[in-house]
Amino acid sequence: MKKISLEMGSGGKIMRDFIDDYIVKIFSNPFLNELSDSALLPNKIGFTTDSYVVDPIFFPGGDIGSLSVNGTVNDLIVSGVKPEFLSLSLIIEEGLELNTVIRILKSVKEAADKAHVSITTGDTKVVKQGQGDKIFINTAGVGSLFARPSLKKIKPGDTIITTGTLGEHSLAIMLAREEFGIEAEVKSDCAPLNFLLPLWKKGALWMRDITRGGLATVLSELSEKLPFSVIIEEEKIPLSQPVQAASELLGIDPLYLACEGRALLVVEKEKTESAVKEIRKNKNGETAEVIGRVDDKLGRPGELLLSTLSGGLRLLEPLTSELLPRIC
Amino acid sequence: MKKISLEMGSGGKIMRDFIDDYIVKIFSNPFLNELSDSALLPNKIGFTTDSYVVDPIFFPGGDIGSLSVNGTVNDLIVSGVKPEFLSLSLIIEEGLELNTVIRILKSVKEAADKAHVSITTGDTKVVKQGQGDKIFINTAGVGSLFARPSLKKIKPGDTIITTGTLGEHSLAIMLAREEFGIEAEVKSDCAPLNFLLPLWKKGALWMRDITRGGLATVLSELSEKLPFSVIIEEEKIPLSQPVQAASELLGIDPLYLACEGRALLVVEKEKTESAVKEIRKNKNGETAEVIGRVDDKLGRPGELLLSTLSGGLRLLEPLTSELLPRIC
Repeated sequence: MKKISLEMGSGGKIMRDFIDDYIVKIFSNPFLNELSDSALLPNKIGFTTDSYVVDPIFFPGGDIGSLSVNGTVNDLIVSGVKPEFLSLSLIIEEGLELNTVIRILKSVKEAADKAHVSITTGDTKVVKQGQGDKIFINTAGVGSLFARPSLKKIKPGDTIITTGTLGEHSLAIMLAREEFGIEAEVKSDCAPLNFLLPLWKKGALWMRDITRGGLATVLSELSEKLPFSVIIEEEKIPLSQPVQAASELLGIDPLYLACEGRALLVVEKEKTESAVKEIRKNKNGETAEVIGRVDDKLGRPGELLLSTLSGGLRLLEPLTSELLPRIC
Repeated sequence: MKKISLEMGSGGKIMRDFIDDYIVKIFSNPFLNELSDSALLPNKIGFTTDSYVVDPIFFPGGDIGSLSVNGTVNDLIVSGVKPEFLSLSLIIEEGLELNTVIRILKSVKEAADKAHVSITTGDTKVVKQGQGDKIFINTAGVGSLFARPSLKKIKPGDTIITTGTLGEHSLAIMLAREEFGIEAEVKSDCAPLNFLLPLWKKGALWMRDITRGGLATVLSELSEKLPFSVIIEEEKIPLSQPVQAASELLGIDPLYLACEGRALLVVEKEKTESAVKEIRKNKNGETAEVIGRVDDKLGRPGELLLSTLSGGLRLLEPLTSELLPRIC
């Protein structure tokens, strides 16, 4: 009898198959068929949810509290929705120190203030020791539509922009777990992406935050929906020194590492330069780069190709299964 | 150092203190200060959330799937909001059978159809074996304001109505756990309360679903907000035969047992008779009864009093701590 595996929650192809085969089929409705990062309800209301089970709950650059705000806020922003209201639901394991919960709640509050959202409703459940793991948090987010993404307007020559270096969140979690025997000073990139909202009216046609599955998975899912290919240039991909070093040491491809404060954008060719300038003005967009383009000459429609440092072209596949469970 | 206890998630006074002392203080905003079952956002949008950790996940009369829909839907209805859209977020323990998850998802779908809501957005996380317990589900609900509750219009003589017999949900869970060595045929009352919505325009001034803490806790929280007392007549409280028998056998007060498909209403005196008639027309309201009234002669303002079978008056306190963890 088939059982639930860690891969089904990993953000890779196995999770997508699970969602396509069961969730979408069972609940079949126009909101879910889109399978974007949030649902667009009537009256231009955006609605999304995520549960956070990150382990450890405190890590350099953030904690499960700030992550629970930023993750949900960013899902709205990349859907063209201005985040306004969050719900907050806690599942706490009996025996967790009250001070730990208070510290997390304060972090939620601070992150909510930074992202300009209010915590408006909530719930608290406690489970017996051994039936949970410290704390799991769910947030749902509601906001108003700011601008509609327009996948159909994407054309060859439009550019792919990353708002910054890749993989710091994944690496910070890995190092915090001390499972890999390496040490480095890496902070999670966990941050709200509110500064991207204006870009929707300045040439951005599509956005997606880089979470489970990393850049390669996110862009694979984009390219599959296009009648063109997407080409990424390896030399242009911004990587911080520790991510580069750790990736080489551990044999990990940083293109599959998750971030929690980075996004990918497709921007109209003519507006690319000004868009990058605008993104770089923000603390969390300082390392933004144009890393690729939509193409109708190289590769086949729907393909995601990496133009490698050695000059070759390599087909990038979406992640099958996450290296690390519980990174978000 | 103070630690999180099961009582903090129990729906009783200890949980309320935790929420008042920490959640409300830290997030202090007008939405939370109300502390009703849902938040009223601008543009007359209602928003609520609940996480469900019920154990066992299947029980007579329902399962964690139908509960996750009905609980959230009912929180909106008793706030005067017509439920329309739900999010669905799963935290699954590795190793759970896929068929079990599918069965639960189908139950969610069936319950959503019955309650006239769409599942519009979702999330799936998987945690390692031993870090969760089979499946936890969070739903958030969004709907449009149908009518505003009006606590301030409540006056002496207005009546307290229960939509049906008490405690079947709690008892069904207890029996399903087989911890108490008794057997009885009891089904959970788990059901959507959509049939109550029209009552908002036919004399209902206040509603609350009877969940953690039971009737006594729900009505204590009401009476505390009133400049009157609330009197409940023991002889009028509808109890099914199994709940009555099990309560006597186990020494449990059914006034503190949770339901998942029952509500309490305050209805204008003159409209009480027609309201009860209307509620009883529905399958889940057949056993509705007028069980008490708002009073300005007996007791002190803010008190909840039980007029007992033996003719006395007994002060009812809110539940301090739930007998059973994980009933919802």
